[in-house]
Amino acid sequence: MAGRAGGSVFVLTDYGLADEFAGVLRAVVQRDAPGASIIDLTHGVTPFDVRGGALALVRAIPYLGPGVVLAVVDPEVGTARRAVAVSVSPAHGARGPHHFVGPDNGLLPWALDVVGGVDRAVALAPRGESRGSTFDGRDLFAPVAAQLWQGVPLSHLGDEFDPRTLVRLSAPRLSASPGALESEVLWVDRFGNVQLAARPDDATAAALGIELEVVAAAVHGARRVQAFAELEFHALGLVVDANGHLALVCHRQSAATVLQVQPGAVVTLRAIVPGRSAP
Amino acid sequence: MAGRAGGSVFVLTDYGLADEFAGVLRAVVQRDAPGASIIDLTHGVTPFDVRGGALALVRAIPYLGPGVVLAVVDPEVGTARRAVAVSVSPAHGARGPHHFVGPDNGLLPWALDVVGGVDRAVALAPRGESRGSTFDGRDLFAPVAAQLWQGVPLSHLGDEFDPRTLVRLSAPRLSASPGALESEVLWVDRFGNVQLAARPDDATAAALGIELEVVAAAVHGARRVQAFAELEFHALGLVVDANGHLALVCHRQSAATVLQVQPGAVVTLRAIVPGRSAP
Amino acid sequence: MAGRAGGSVFVLTDYGLADEFAGVLRAVVQRDAPGASIIDLTHGVTPFDVRGGALALVRAIPYLGPGVVLAVVDPEVGTARRAVAVSVSPAHGARGPHHFVGPDNGLLPWALDVVGGVDRAVALAPRGESRGSTFDGRDLFAPVAAQLWQGVPLSHLGDEFDPRTLVRLSAPRLSASPGALESEVLWVDRFGNVQLAARPDDATAAALGIELEVVAAAVHGARRVQAFAELEFHALGLVVDANGHLALVCHRQSAATVLQVQPGAVVTLRAIVPGRSAP
Repeated sequence: MAGRAGGSVFVLTDYGLADEFAGVLRAVVQRDAPGASIIDLTHGVTPFDVRGGALALVRAIPYLGPGVVLAVVDPEVGTARRAVAVSVSPAHGARGPHHFVGPDNGLLPWALDVVGGVDRAVALAPRGESRGSTFDGRDLFAPVAAQLWQGVPLSHLGDEFDPRTLVRLSAPRLSASPGALESEVLWVDRFGNVQLAARPDDATAAALGIELEVVAAAVHGARRVQAFAELEFHALGLVVDANGHLALVCHRQSAATVLQVQPGAVVTLRAIVPGRSAP
Repeated sequence: MAGRAGGSVFVLTDYGLADEFAGVLRAVVQRDAPGASIIDLTHGVTPFDVRGGALALVRAIPYLGPGVVLAVVDPEVGTARRAVAVSVSPAHGARGPHHFVGPDNGLLPWALDVVGGVDRAVALAPRGESRGSTFDGRDLFAPVAAQLWQGVPLSHLGDEFDPRTLVRLSAPRLSASPGALESEVLWVDRFGNVQLAARPDDATAAALGIELEVVAAAVHGARRVQAFAELEFHALGLVVDANGHLALVCHRQSAATVLQVQPGAVVTLRAIVPGRSAP
Repeated sequence: MAGRAGGSVFVLTDYGLADEFAGVLRAVVQRDAPGASIIDLTHGVTPFDVRGGALALVRAIPYLGPGVVLAVVDPEVGTARRAVAVSVSPAHGARGPHHFVGPDNGLLPWALDVVGGVDRAVALAPRGESRGSTFDGRDLFAPVAAQLWQGVPLSHLGDEFDPRTLVRLSAPRLSASPGALESEVLWVDRFGNVQLAARPDDATAAALGIELEVVAAAVHGARRVQAFAELEFHALGLVVDANGHLALVCHRQSAATVLQVQPGAVVTLRAIVPGRSAP
């Protein structure tokens, strides 16, 4: 059975760019799949932050063309954790990535959900250099990504297993009740915007109005806005961000600094009840 | 009317590389313009620093081959600020970029001046996802850059407007008088070199000699040199830098740290008058 | 005589990514060698750290396909230091890079040793813009790399010289005696792993056991392991790393922080002698 092939190789890691790790990954893909366009999604995932990497991949995935996703955030490299390659359901068509490669630690499944789920999955056989390696990105995942790009069938790369056994991360905390929306902070971006797990429907479910309160380290007033520039200096806004999530933002200022929150924190958005805020 | 097409897509943003923003931009260009070579000029512009981005683009532009410049430093995203695409005067020929895409906030015009000015300009029509978006780079600018690369005529992308109405940044501060040259600091690079708005002709106009004084937070002696390595440790040199500007430099040390200056600061270079420096 | 040509252009510099330096280098290569795949190995070498750049290149080189290596860490730019281009011994075949370009300051020879040594070497003639330039990467090295990629013979680019006169860096400190292995720290990576000059054979020569002591700022216990995940929190491990060197590591923690060492430091690994460690 011939695999689907071609397109780009999309790379996401926690390697950073100070060392040559990411460059060597690119070089191996280029060496083994000459002509592949290599698209770095990011190498800036916080070291060992599988959850942060999984979320970045979910945000990027709707915008990718055809190709292979090569994702490596792998604190358990060298242990018995599975290294995997999966094919995407053909129903998803030729629009997006057709294969994903990476460690089986929760990094891939959320993004796979977005593209319609897994068709088939294999546990990668270790190969020469990768036996006992501390750099499976270079020695196993990149060569496999290049082979999948070349059209090597998945079945040639390892033993098939039930995709439902892929390791999954716990779902982000999120709960709505009348007047209150409790949500995990998924992401703080370079600009200090605070992306929440909550989406506009959740705000509706919680009956939050245009003016609201944010409970983090302290209690802050906030306002629903459409653009950063609607906000005065130091004012906190609630927007629907570019990924369809609610996000707490400021104008030319870091909302994360104002709120003193980091990814993984839980904040509460509260409707303002007349009388309560006027003691 | 067919547009000019092809070449590279040159990308400059303030997105940084810690998040997947720049990667998604690359992916969208690759998806919509398969085969384009994507050249990241930099994603390291200080967040929201339109002036810093405009200056980086000016420095890069003489060295670019044919293609489309995609530049995004856009603090007013989501507001009524214009999103624009412009074609470069055909007199500039096929040597450099033929189109520029970005926000109308001063980011583009200085670089456009370098390549011979604007031929035609259009205000981009919002499109599906970009309506009310906080990520026009992904939803509007990158798709438009890909279309221009593909040869879609500018007139298909929005309403034409008079290019003389493009927003322009204020010119850098610069004034020469006999014995004194006052200049804005344009840029402090990774190595701590301090690029001035002044050029060699300005030093000549101010009759600065080989030995001179630099007035910043304090007064420092400095010397005209050709190479960093001519300088002793801690000594300050004045060179003509790789962009034809005067720059204050040290050898293997940050001149910006010695001088305690940042971009936007104003420094004065003074000729040394015999008698004045010997009390 | 036609040169060998094609493949990728592999780029390593200390330019960082905050400025447009690396982007301009890419743009010049793309302009002069359209169709070349440009692979950034890293631009994150510590500014002016020729030794660090040389070591990063050595680690990357075995994984590169055919092409030209363009390496620039060049504190003496603008002085009489030679700018060089070299061809790799044809015996190395078409598997790896066929040419290297960069300053003659020790940056290239270690990597050249890995690929079988130098065949021919030329001192690059300065060209128009590069005369007195502070940015030879843009004005000299990148154009030359593009020409070599195009197949321009080395002899057209400058005067041939004896490759044995290439500047070489001092060898890393390393000495083994019974029960003690003294080694320079070559590299601290993003994850805080501490790569030593020593290799497994050196540990064997020093008769180090599974349990050992590391003498840095203080004395630490350590244990030979295969994977990071075998280590408890705060425990120090000794692994054979992905480049075949001994490395001191922790699990999800920086060994460099635990040991308080940086590249260039010297550490001693000591066998544990029964009785000595129990006073």
